[in-house]
Amino acid sequence: MSDSREGVGAGGLPEGLKLNEQGLIPAVVQDVGNGDVLMVGWMNAESLRRTLEGGRTCFWSRSRQQYWVKGLTSGHVQHVKSVYVDCDQDVLLVKVEQVGAACHEGYRSCFYRQVVGDSLESATLRVIAERIAEPS
Amino acid sequence: MSDSREGVGAGGLPEGLKLNEQGLIPAVVQDVGNGDVLMVGWMNAESLRRTLEGGRTCFWSRSRQQYWVKGLTSGHVQHVKSVYVDCDQDVLLVKVEQVGAACHEGYRSCFYRQVVGDSLESATLRVIAERIAEPS
Repeated sequence: MSDSREGVGAGGLPEGLKLNEQGLIPAVVQDVGNGDVLMVGWMNAESLRRTLEGGRTCFWSRSRQQYWVKGLTSGHVQHVKSVYVDCDQDVLLVKVEQVGAACHEGYRSCFYRQVVGDSLESATLRVIAERIAEPS
Repeated sequence: MSDSREGVGAGGLPEGLKLNEQGLIPAVVQDVGNGDVLMVGWMNAESLRRTLEGGRTCFWSRSRQQYWVKGLTSGHVQHVKSVYVDCDQDVLLVKVEQVGAACHEGYRSCFYRQVVGDSLESATLRVIAERIAEPS
């Protein structure tokens, strides 16, 4: 929130983007149909390039240290409709048409559990969605 | 995506949460009214506690190294309606009633610029929203 840039135009990407120490930027993925937040993945400049040019979301897997086209094996791909950057250019928002389940646990959205309770210690998690696919 | 936990119940927070090396977890903030993604902030365990217990979003400012109740000075507070965790418990989703502008640039949402273009080098940013407040 400390550094605002205005008027970023041609050539503003990827130079304008603020990647973290690992060269990554978080990407919030939102269902363009109903507005549900589906997941958050991490992109580097190359996976953003693949996302923009390929029309499907491509992330950088931090655990596997490799590119990861969402749904490539499961078929649960995300067709990219539009991409946005936040004020600080350190977060992306990607609106998609989601095929099937975004979550590897078989839920449409990765945010299938609600935090219930009004204190940290007493909080519990409640599943608030139905599985629509087998966990992968 | 590699480590899934099921049945986390009482005492699952904050133990169940996966904080990063700085003890932080990203929190996606969504407008409960229209579903717009408003911003992404960072929380540590204490700011999550304050968010759950105080009913307004509280973040950890990485640049200022201090807690930050959103809108405390501007009045543009976020009243917390519900909180969710993702499958890996390394991202939070907070649904809020937003008062005024979530963005310090005076826009309702921090994601007021769209990435236009289908290649990384040719991409430009286009402002797709109207300012509703003075930049702060």
